[in-house]
Amino acid sequence: MQAEDALRALDAHYQAMPPVASMQLRIAGYDGRVLALEAPLASHVNDKGCAFGGSLVSLLTLAGWGLVTLHVQQAGLEADVFVADSEVRYLAPLFADLRAQARIEEGASWDDFVAGLRERGRASTTVIATVPLPEGGVATTCRARFVAIVRRHG
Amino acid sequence: MQAEDALRALDAHYQAMPPVASMQLRIAGYDGRVLALEAPLASHVNDKGCAFGGSLVSLLTLAGWGLVTLHVQQAGLEADVFVADSEVRYLAPLFADLRAQARIEEGASWDDFVAGLRERGRASTTVIATVPLPEGGVATTCRARFVAIVRRHG
Repeated sequence: MQAEDALRALDAHYQAMPPVASMQLRIAGYDGRVLALEAPLASHVNDKGCAFGGSLVSLLTLAGWGLVTLHVQQAGLEADVFVADSEVRYLAPLFADLRAQARIEEGASWDDFVAGLRERGRASTTVIATVPLPEGGVATTCRARFVAIVRRHG
Repeated sequence: MQAEDALRALDAHYQAMPPVASMQLRIAGYDGRVLALEAPLASHVNDKGCAFGGSLVSLLTLAGWGLVTLHVQQAGLEADVFVADSEVRYLAPLFADLRAQARIEEGASWDDFVAGLRERGRASTTVIATVPLPEGGVATTCRARFVAIVRRHG
């Protein structure tokens, strides 16, 4: 699958989920390493005029899930991708549109992940996703582990 | 504030946040110790037909936030309540309506929290929230720390 087709398929995948469609997110970029998602603050504002914590985690989780899904597709595999656990730190309030950037954890490897998926039909990896502040620094960080399980046909 | 008025105010607070209003959640119960929220699966379904992880965290976080907010109000205080960090474990997929139950962490005390808030204008506490499976057991657990800061007027 070409990169552009893969992103189009990922976007369709996102928009097919009712809670995700209501987030008005869009894929803001993917360079093969970092997947970036964006969503407008107006749809995600809390009682204090800044981004709602649940929206931040949702966007961070979706960015990580999307990154893993892209690597599964790139390997020519079909697998369900699940989030297994996550740790989130809300470091500073965000009074701007939400942007989440996901990349694999330092020291972890996509080659190992794909090899495990091919050999055992199941693999997990850890993704670091962050929401930057427009003025520099970080609003929210998320460390999440995702599990992929190859779909059996027949 | 009477308990019924406090729950009505909390519900209004939830529904005033656009991302929360779109969740179609409702307060399902509060006995002074456990706050329960519910939301329909249809609004929170993912690509695998079960509850979306972001929706589960959002509901768990809102249950914890609501529980802390109720205790702030019950103490006759006005404070902004923020989530500071959270750890979430997705233990089993949920193919039913979402229900989150939040209570203070074992060993922690609301009296200490309220005393700290009165004395220093700021206090934090840890809330455990879980989403049960209808057949027994747990779908998702969340351990989250919330910070309350007294609002200064004038």
